[in-house]
Amino acid sequence: MALALNREELSQYLTEVFPQVREDFAIDDLTEDTITMRLLTAERHLRPGGTISGPSMFALADVCVYAMVLARLGRQALAVTTSCSMDFMRKPEGNTQMIAQCRLLKLGRSLAVGDILMFSEGSDKPVARASMTYSIPPQGSAAAQFG
Amino acid sequence: MALALNREELSQYLTEVFPQVREDFAIDDLTEDTITMRLLTAERHLRPGGTISGPSMFALADVCVYAMVLARLGRQALAVTTSCSMDFMRKPEGNTQMIAQCRLLKLGRSLAVGDILMFSEGSDKPVARASMTYSIPPQGSAAAQFG
Amino acid sequence: MALALNREELSQYLTEVFPQVREDFAIDDLTEDTITMRLLTAERHLRPGGTISGPSMFALADVCVYAMVLARLGRQALAVTTSCSMDFMRKPEGNTQMIAQCRLLKLGRSLAVGDILMFSEGSDKPVARASMTYSIPPQGSAAAQFG
Amino acid sequence: MALALNREELSQYLTEVFPQVREDFAIDDLTEDTITMRLLTAERHLRPGGTISGPSMFALADVCVYAMVLARLGRQALAVTTSCSMDFMRKPEGNTQMIAQCRLLKLGRSLAVGDILMFSEGSDKPVARASMTYSIPPQGSAAAQFG
Repeated sequence: MALALNREELSQYLTEVFPQVREDFAIDDLTEDTITMRLLTAERHLRPGGTISGPSMFALADVCVYAMVLARLGRQALAVTTSCSMDFMRKPEGNTQMIAQCRLLKLGRSLAVGDILMFSEGSDKPVARASMTYSIPPQGSAAAQFG
Repeated sequence: MALALNREELSQYLTEVFPQVREDFAIDDLTEDTITMRLLTAERHLRPGGTISGPSMFALADVCVYAMVLARLGRQALAVTTSCSMDFMRKPEGNTQMIAQCRLLKLGRSLAVGDILMFSEGSDKPVARASMTYSIPPQGSAAAQFG
Repeated sequence: MALALNREELSQYLTEVFPQVREDFAIDDLTEDTITMRLLTAERHLRPGGTISGPSMFALADVCVYAMVLARLGRQALAVTTSCSMDFMRKPEGNTQMIAQCRLLKLGRSLAVGDILMFSEGSDKPVARASMTYSIPPQGSAAAQFG
Repeated sequence: MALALNREELSQYLTEVFPQVREDFAIDDLTEDTITMRLLTAERHLRPGGTISGPSMFALADVCVYAMVLARLGRQALAVTTSCSMDFMRKPEGNTQMIAQCRLLKLGRSLAVGDILMFSEGSDKPVARASMTYSIPPQGSAAAQFG
């Protein structure tokens, strides 16, 4: 139950393997089984009316669980998303950043599961919830398969 | 954000409208936006091998959100489940009761959303997670429709 | 893409390993990647008001994918459900049997995915949809783990 | 059960209210309860390794149900996504367009539900499945709420 990468190492590794992360997301906090990330809201994340798009919220939830798995397993891991569910509960504020609080519920030999609550920064009413399952590559394998 | 029914009133009302609840479930704790319930595990909830069945875990998650909505809206409410998602993460112990911790994430005019973590009693590793959406009947209506 | 068990063999095997299946479910049709099953609706599947309970619909969806995996992999398989999602769209008729049409969307080395539409017999309007993911045990292993 | 907008009208209306749709998606086919759309795969939809990103597949599934609801309800509708579930089953080909086949399972007074299968063009093995629920605004209202 120890972290293989600390917050700085994780942040640097994410930007190496996943360059678009750098402009879109930042890591606020990391523990052994939680991560808090934020969407650096920009024009490209918005929908008409000034609300944050569904795909941007999906991406935020997805990167949280991916980052959490990397933080625990280290640089060699190449996990893939196998399933997700999301509920959209309130209109997000388009002119604020979005905060995602993720818990790692399971890190098994082949599957990892995390759940996520998302908030407009400064509000305590959840905008959306998500759960994400990742398939984890076997030891020594370069990449996960879809199972 | 106040409760319309306290724990005793909720428990009594549930057994009136939903008699099978009495033998299967008990309410451990109730706050304005959380409820803890338990499955009173019996032979009929088990699968071969002594594990708790998926339908029993579904029923436990479902009754949590239903009870939480009643606790907030009071006796007149007749909500119906419109969607759910579940992840089954670990083998539950068949010889223990199962504890469900539910948070009410949203109680809107027409939809309520709750999420649930389930544990074998005495363990802190989640066996399953669930999220449930209920459709809430309009004021003055006897029952919710499916939207 | 061939069946390891035909409909009769599958039906017999299900009742051996899963005795409660016999009273609750029947297999109407089986092909290499579809199965049609029915819930033999009885008092114990109903909710007040005469509608079929959510847990009964969960059980019907779940047994479809389980049976489909067994039909393809044969008697040795012991798969476990790892995730599901369901949408409840219309009120089911309590006085009719419920029909589930399931497609096997994927049968990989470690994961199987199926989706299901459920109908009250005699109606073509879907009452519910579900998708179910199963974890499949490695060759030679007695049972699947939860990954 | 008639269409309020035909394929050309729908396509034009989508590009008016949702300008980013024009560059990303096209409508292949439209019937009273199905729509086939494609992702016009470009560099911005890809992940390292040349595969199509999860958020792009989410966006494709989401726009299908949104477009289907508009096709049935006409120009006045402003529906919002309230929940989704997705299963990612195979690695999509990054150098092909992605085809989404969507069925409208329900169009109620306040909720619409669709499910979607996604394929790399030229393949009949599904890459992903999704289901999406939309909240529909009451008649005469400018926009849906989140319920």
